[in-house]
Amino acid sequence: MTVTTPQGFRSAGIAVGLKSTGKPDLALVVNDGPQHASAAVFTSNRAQANPILWSRKVAQEGPARAIILNSGGANCFTGDFGYETTRLTAAAVAAELNADPEQILVCSTGLIGTGDQAFRDKIVGNVPALAAALSGSDTTAPAAILTTDSVEKTAVHRGDGWTIGAMAKGAGMLAPGLATMLVVITTDALLDDAALDSALRGATATSFDRLDSDGCMSTNDQVTLLASGASGVAPDETEFANALAAVCDSLAAQLQADAEGASHNIDIEVLGAASDSDAIEVGRSVARNNLFKAAIFGNDPNWGRVLAAIGTTEAAFDPYQVDVSFNGVRLCHAGAPDRPVDECDLTPRKTHVRIELFAGEHSATIRTNDLTHDYVHENSAYSS
Amino acid sequence: MTVTTPQGFRSAGIAVGLKSTGKPDLALVVNDGPQHASAAVFTSNRAQANPILWSRKVAQEGPARAIILNSGGANCFTGDFGYETTRLTAAAVAAELNADPEQILVCSTGLIGTGDQAFRDKIVGNVPALAAALSGSDTTAPAAILTTDSVEKTAVHRGDGWTIGAMAKGAGMLAPGLATMLVVITTDALLDDAALDSALRGATATSFDRLDSDGCMSTNDQVTLLASGASGVAPDETEFANALAAVCDSLAAQLQADAEGASHNIDIEVLGAASDSDAIEVGRSVARNNLFKAAIFGNDPNWGRVLAAIGTTEAAFDPYQVDVSFNGVRLCHAGAPDRPVDECDLTPRKTHVRIELFAGEHSATIRTNDLTHDYVHENSAYSS
Repeated sequence: MTVTTPQGFRSAGIAVGLKSTGKPDLALVVNDGPQHASAAVFTSNRAQANPILWSRKVAQEGPARAIILNSGGANCFTGDFGYETTRLTAAAVAAELNADPEQILVCSTGLIGTGDQAFRDKIVGNVPALAAALSGSDTTAPAAILTTDSVEKTAVHRGDGWTIGAMAKGAGMLAPGLATMLVVITTDALLDDAALDSALRGATATSFDRLDSDGCMSTNDQVTLLASGASGVAPDETEFANALAAVCDSLAAQLQADAEGASHNIDIEVLGAASDSDAIEVGRSVARNNLFKAAIFGNDPNWGRVLAAIGTTEAAFDPYQVDVSFNGVRLCHAGAPDRPVDECDLTPRKTHVRIELFAGEHSATIRTNDLTHDYVHENSAYSS
Repeated sequence: MTVTTPQGFRSAGIAVGLKSTGKPDLALVVNDGPQHASAAVFTSNRAQANPILWSRKVAQEGPARAIILNSGGANCFTGDFGYETTRLTAAAVAAELNADPEQILVCSTGLIGTGDQAFRDKIVGNVPALAAALSGSDTTAPAAILTTDSVEKTAVHRGDGWTIGAMAKGAGMLAPGLATMLVVITTDALLDDAALDSALRGATATSFDRLDSDGCMSTNDQVTLLASGASGVAPDETEFANALAAVCDSLAAQLQADAEGASHNIDIEVLGAASDSDAIEVGRSVARNNLFKAAIFGNDPNWGRVLAAIGTTEAAFDPYQVDVSFNGVRLCHAGAPDRPVDECDLTPRKTHVRIELFAGEHSATIRTNDLTHDYVHENSAYSS
C-alpha cells in the first residue's frame, strides 16, 4: 500500500497494451473524500504534453476527484487529436465516478509523438476495467506508471493520526523544473488547497528541483498532491510541510538511484555561496558537465573539470580560492592541486563532491548521475 | 606549409616529452615582420589557465612577436608556480628572438592541474632546440598542438597578393566562448591591430562560437591572429574579413569532424527566428541535449527530443507551430507528426536538422556531434 495508505483513497494498475512488454501501463488513484483538496506542480518546459495542458486547468479550477496515469506514450505533440484523447480519458473516468471530466487529472509518459487512435482506444476503452480494479489496499498502481525504471518508487510518512503515501516514476529526462517524473502523493490530513500548495512548492523546490540527472527537461512532468481529509486530523502546517519535504526527498533519492544507465549517484554539495541561487547554479553547472560525468563513470576524480564547469557560471566567487573534495579527500585547495588523486576512491556507487566557494554562508546539494555507456545505449535505442 | 604560407613567418614543432606517447608537443610560430600587428580572443570561462592570464596582457599591450604552444598539460589551476612557468616560457622564447618576454604569447592544452617542475623543465629547457628548428617552410607545428585529435587541422586562403594560413587543435571540451581549441592564424596582409581585431571577432562569432560539440567550455582556449605586413599589400578590410571568416569556418568544420568519439557531424539550422540570438539559443539548446545526441548516435530521428529541448529556451516562438526536418524529411509539422520517421536515413555521418520557428526572419546554424560510447570511453579514461 502506498497511495492508499492514507484513508479515503483507492487505486489500481492494469495492463492495457500500451507497453510492448505487456507490463501494467494504466493507473488510477481516486480520492473518495470527504474532502477533495489538491495541489500540483508541472514541468516548466514550454513544450508541454496534452495531459499537462489539461491537468493545469483541472488543478486550477478543481476539485480534483481522481488522477489517471498511463505509461507507454507521452501524448505530446500529437495535435488536437491528442488533446481530445486526454479529454475523453478524463470523461471516461468521470463517468465511472459520477463526476465531471474537469475534475479528473490526467498524466502520460513515454515517447513524444505517440498518441494515435490505437493509443486512445486502449486507454479510454479500458477505463471501466481499471475502475473495477480499484481497491483501498491496492499495490498494483506504482508498477503501472514506470517506463525505463527498474524498480517501483514509493514512500510513506505516518504522522500523529494522519499519513502521507506516494508513488513516483523517473528514469530518464531527469532535470528540473522537474524531472521526467510523474509523482502522486496522497494524504488523509485535513488541509485546504492553499496549505497543500505552499507545502508542495516548498517540498519540490528542495527535492525534485535539485535532481538533475541528465540536464534534459521533460514535457510531461507532474507532481500531484491529493488530500481526502478522511483522518479528520488537521496537522500543524509546518509539521506537514516538513513531512512532505521528507517524502519528496526520499522519492528524489530513489529517482537518482535508478536513473537510466547510471553507475554512480553523485551528490554535489556546494558550500560557502553568496546566495542559495548561486549554490544551485554552481552545483547544476557541474551536474550538467558531460566531461565531469564521464570522468566519474571512469572512477577518475577529475577536479579540473569541476573548476572548468563552475567557471562558466555567474555566481559570486573567486575560482582561484575554491576547494574541491571528492569522497572526503580535498584534491584542490585555493585553486591548486592538494592531496594526490590516488588517495580518492570512486568505486562506491555513492559519490560526494564538495565544493567550497568561500563567498558566503549559503549552500545547496544537487543530485546527479554519471555519464555511462549504458546511458548512451538506452537512449540511442529507446524508440526502436 | 600552413602558418608559414604567408610571408614573414617561421614555425617549428618538436617532441619534448610532455606527451606520454612521445609525439610532438611543443610548437613555436614567429612573426619576423616587418609589422607585428595582432589580435586574439580568449575563452570566456572565468576559470582560466595561466597562459590565458599571461597572453591576455601580451595581446592588450603588444606587439606580439611570437606564440609558443604546448600540448600535454594545461597549466591551469597550478597556482603561482604555474604562472611563473608561463612567464619563464615567454622569457626563454624572448631570449632567442632578442625580444621582451611581454611580447611572447603562450598557449597550453591538456589535463587541468598539470604543470609541475618536470613540465616546466621540459618546456623551458627545450626552447633553444625549438628555436633552432624554426623554418619558413615548416610543416611540423600543426602536429605539436594536437591532443586527442586524430588529424591535423589547417587552412589557407590566397588573396590578391596576400595570404592567410592557419592551424588548429580541437577534439574535446568543445563549446563556445570558444572550444578547447587553440588556433593560430597568420597573414602577410598589411593591416593594423584594430582591423585585425574587428575581423577576428566577426569571424569567430560565426564559426568557433557556433560550434558546440559537448557543451563543455574550456579553460585554455585562445584564437590568435598575427600579421606581418610582409606582402606590402593592404587588402580591402571587408574582403579580408570575409576571407578570415571562411578560414575560421573551415577550421570549425574540421574540429566538428574530428570531435572526440563522434560518429555524426550534426548541423542544426534554425530558421524563422525573431533574432539572431534567439536562433543561436534554440540551436544550442538542441546541441546540448544529451537525449537528442544519443538518439542521433542510434540513427533515431527523435524529433520529440528536439521540441523538448527548444521548449526550455526563452526564444520567441510557439512550440505548437514549429516544423522539424531531419536530413530533408519533415517529420514534425506545426507541432505534430508529419512524415513517417522511417523515411529518414541517419546513417550518413553528416546530419542536418532544420528547425523552422515561424517567428521572424533570422537564422543560425550550430554545429555539434552525437553522444557515443566512444565519447564516454575517451573522457572516462582521459587522465589515466
